[in-house]
Amino acid sequence: MASSAPSSSNAAPDPTPPNLRPTTYDSWCGVAHGCTRKIGLKICGFLQRTNSLEDKGRIVSSLKERQSSKSLLACENSEKESRFRRTETDFSNLYARDLLPSKNGEEQTMQFLLEVVDILLNYVKKTFDRSTKVLDFHHPHQLLEGMEGFNLELSDNPESLEQILVDCRDTLKYGVRTGHPRFFNQLSTGLDIIGLAGEWLTSTANTNMFTYEIAPVFVLMEQITLRKMREIIGWSNKDGDGIFSPGGAISNMYSIMAARYKYFPEVKTKGMAAVPKLVLFTSEHSHYSIKKAGAALGFGTDNVILIKCNERGKIIPADLEAKILEAKEKAAWGGGLLMSRKHRHKLNGIERANSVTWNPHKMMGVLLQCSAILVREKGILQGCNQMCAGYLFQPDKQYDVSYDTGDKAIQCGRHVDIFKFWLMWKAKGTVGFENQINKCLELAEYLYTKIKNREEFEMVFEGEPEHTNVCFWYIPPSLRGMPDSDERREKLHRVAPKIKALMMESGTTMVGYQPQGDKVNFFRMVISNPAATKSDIDFLIEEIERLGQEL
Amino acid sequence: MASSAPSSSNAAPDPTPPNLRPTTYDSWCGVAHGCTRKIGLKICGFLQRTNSLEDKGRIVSSLKERQSSKSLLACENSEKESRFRRTETDFSNLYARDLLPSKNGEEQTMQFLLEVVDILLNYVKKTFDRSTKVLDFHHPHQLLEGMEGFNLELSDNPESLEQILVDCRDTLKYGVRTGHPRFFNQLSTGLDIIGLAGEWLTSTANTNMFTYEIAPVFVLMEQITLRKMREIIGWSNKDGDGIFSPGGAISNMYSIMAARYKYFPEVKTKGMAAVPKLVLFTSEHSHYSIKKAGAALGFGTDNVILIKCNERGKIIPADLEAKILEAKEKAAWGGGLLMSRKHRHKLNGIERANSVTWNPHKMMGVLLQCSAILVREKGILQGCNQMCAGYLFQPDKQYDVSYDTGDKAIQCGRHVDIFKFWLMWKAKGTVGFENQINKCLELAEYLYTKIKNREEFEMVFEGEPEHTNVCFWYIPPSLRGMPDSDERREKLHRVAPKIKALMMESGTTMVGYQPQGDKVNFFRMVISNPAATKSDIDFLIEEIERLGQEL
Repeated sequence: MASSAPSSSNAAPDPTPPNLRPTTYDSWCGVAHGCTRKIGLKICGFLQRTNSLEDKGRIVSSLKERQSSKSLLACENSEKESRFRRTETDFSNLYARDLLPSKNGEEQTMQFLLEVVDILLNYVKKTFDRSTKVLDFHHPHQLLEGMEGFNLELSDNPESLEQILVDCRDTLKYGVRTGHPRFFNQLSTGLDIIGLAGEWLTSTANTNMFTYEIAPVFVLMEQITLRKMREIIGWSNKDGDGIFSPGGAISNMYSIMAARYKYFPEVKTKGMAAVPKLVLFTSEHSHYSIKKAGAALGFGTDNVILIKCNERGKIIPADLEAKILEAKEKAAWGGGLLMSRKHRHKLNGIERANSVTWNPHKMMGVLLQCSAILVREKGILQGCNQMCAGYLFQPDKQYDVSYDTGDKAIQCGRHVDIFKFWLMWKAKGTVGFENQINKCLELAEYLYTKIKNREEFEMVFEGEPEHTNVCFWYIPPSLRGMPDSDERREKLHRVAPKIKALMMESGTTMVGYQPQGDKVNFFRMVISNPAATKSDIDFLIEEIERLGQEL
Repeated sequence: MASSAPSSSNAAPDPTPPNLRPTTYDSWCGVAHGCTRKIGLKICGFLQRTNSLEDKGRIVSSLKERQSSKSLLACENSEKESRFRRTETDFSNLYARDLLPSKNGEEQTMQFLLEVVDILLNYVKKTFDRSTKVLDFHHPHQLLEGMEGFNLELSDNPESLEQILVDCRDTLKYGVRTGHPRFFNQLSTGLDIIGLAGEWLTSTANTNMFTYEIAPVFVLMEQITLRKMREIIGWSNKDGDGIFSPGGAISNMYSIMAARYKYFPEVKTKGMAAVPKLVLFTSEHSHYSIKKAGAALGFGTDNVILIKCNERGKIIPADLEAKILEAKEKAAWGGGLLMSRKHRHKLNGIERANSVTWNPHKMMGVLLQCSAILVREKGILQGCNQMCAGYLFQPDKQYDVSYDTGDKAIQCGRHVDIFKFWLMWKAKGTVGFENQINKCLELAEYLYTKIKNREEFEMVFEGEPEHTNVCFWYIPPSLRGMPDSDERREKLHRVAPKIKALMMESGTTMVGYQPQGDKVNFFRMVISNPAATKSDIDFLIEEIERLGQEL
């Protein structure tokens, strides 16, 4: 089809595209692949980068005429020429309007982006540097009043690119280094470099997941990755389904909607009033998103029935239904455990669930946001959510429209969350994720072993942690040896918040705390930061002791 | 608080952080600000970048000793030294595990990221180059079979960083350049450079919007921006509310939930079964997300009542309620119109709505995802959605916890969507957005004027477009002059899909099509791409004629 060249427009001052037939790149790239793999890949990369007929022609002829190492070297040199070099640029008189698509904006654009990258690379470097602080804490009113030329207010007139660059630096300066080896606060921690590269690329590609038409590669990556995840869950059927959503809470909402649709499809058209009163059973320790979903979807939070758990947070299994729910509830945070041959037995039974929420943006260290809802049954998401919007999902397209996945979602536009995850999987392999997860669990065990028998600490739950959560109280000198009483409990309740506040002021590390039921405020350590080592665990313990010794 | 230095750990092999008190930077930066603004900003930037006591001390002494232009120059030189330089790196034997946080991984990390940036900058450059194609179309099965070493399958073992870089190039190669000046497909088009920089920074900061604690700057930016947006809507009260959500569909869902909660707060606890039957009124042309929300929230799609519209897609106003809904329905896509003093009258009445969905990721050209739900009444989002998860929203923190905005959301983790938008606003100013939107509307008018009286085209709706949507049929030679009949309509129905398929094959431009009600497939041009000029509109028209002349 369409092998004739587009007609040139006399009215248009812009150059018309040459006739780049889809096969052009392929055939030349094929020639390139005839070389050794490494050189071949490089030439291929070069062909893709230049995407210009002249350059391609030049390389192909040089390859055809003399396939000597000399000509390949020349090719590598020309690749180098296409690299960008930073030059000194005065940004004080440049504005957003001077950047692309502005005419002659190319050089400024490249220099501006390189300057931004420089700021980001410095930040990345410092993120992993233990001699820097985790955060430089300021109260909201301090930041709102304006810090040294960092003004958060928006104005009617543009600011110079120089000021924009300062704003970028300031934003990072007053933020929190979540990738710092000593950042243990919930939830996403760590800064995966491959994931970062993936996210930079995703934002540069700036497309939308609703149709294959505008996101062909990303749509396929999503399908392949979801299939792999279903295999890992242990579903034996080949044709389950799933979708990436903006987070675990939304994924959980999907799973409840899918279950409701399966048993009461008429809810979709007739609403909750048309069916018998429905209730949701869930663990008393389940994530609060189940309640949120209960409220949103029209069940009502009173109809979210909490099932009692044992001391370890496991549902006391009254019946199979409860077990299935158990598997469901654990998986958002713990999904990563499935990647570990050593630890996946802790999620035994998950393969009996009909839907699983799995958040790679938690323990697997994928950059936020990256959450998947996986369902065993094909067609259920489509059936539940599709509305067949004519302007997006035309049935008469030239390609297989089953790849237009948008109508499975409750969203319309949908961010590309798959690429960074896919790229990380490529770069680490399944074994890489496995090692990463095993390491987190080892560190959790290390922390537990280190503090369990010390008088300065008390564990919140009995026994070794099954996951990377380690919950403990720090007992300041003034409370040691004091028998349990309301007074001691009240005092202990105030310890963790005080230490946390001091910790944030000094900016050396961060860890979360919370009360739970009748348990007063305790530290809740969640280890998922791949940058953390045993020495960072040591540091955290010492820091808590240092900050808490006067309490 | 906490002015003493953290104690050093003997057990930890890593360096302990020096005592960087929050005031250190401030005071030195203050000195720097004493210089001329430009130099001052640079020094400030440098202080932030190095974040090291020694360097800071050095600069401050040089400033104090002799405030000559010579010493400032020296300072600028040392700033240059902190810049990253690309070197030739062989990535074929490097793997993800060799990057940070790996020991000695810093240099490889910087070089790898610079290589990625090079790929991205080349892509950005080509995106705006009209001599390149918009896409290089392949069918799903072609991409799945594997293209020239681009294998989408995931494996157990890691791939080299060289392969990862090739994967990055290939992903872009086989994707769609949504920022290309001739990409007119729905929905997000254009690639805003400031927004891109903002998104790169956002992913590098990799944090989560649920608490002030881990996203202090972003939380404040969100509040300031939402307030500004409410002012622009025209709400006179100061204390409305709002939140950024993953997209317009979710924002619309929020608005329905908020309205339901306001009038029937018991739905939150008791569910839809406990209240009288509720129905949703909406325009017959409203976005399909209203139906999706109706299904999800337990109303049922049968209870989404569509109100008839006139030929221009406006609700025939039966009453005030309908008018309010009208304003609501339009705003997600059209929110940007509010930024234009020339066009905002088209949304007159919007200030009477109780909630507005406004998607900066549409006409304002902010990178996906960026959508806000704004509500007139403070506290309604909190009341509707809060579940008070103890592990996140501790009431006993040391700062003003009203800045912990997470419990307003139906999500738990929430991506930072604000920064790129805030940065674009800074860089363009309100007037910059205004110009951008005016330009889109001018182009829509240009297209309309150009084709309205030509025999090759037929407009779908009467009259000038009020927005950037221009809907038209291309009439191929074989159908010109043929009177309206079922046969003609059937033939015309097949024209747009055929042209679109040919267009995608040749990769020269992209535009959407759809049927609507009794109207057969027509082209639906939505102009929101700031890179597009009149010449690109000319090109599109000529391209449609070229591809359709044989039909």
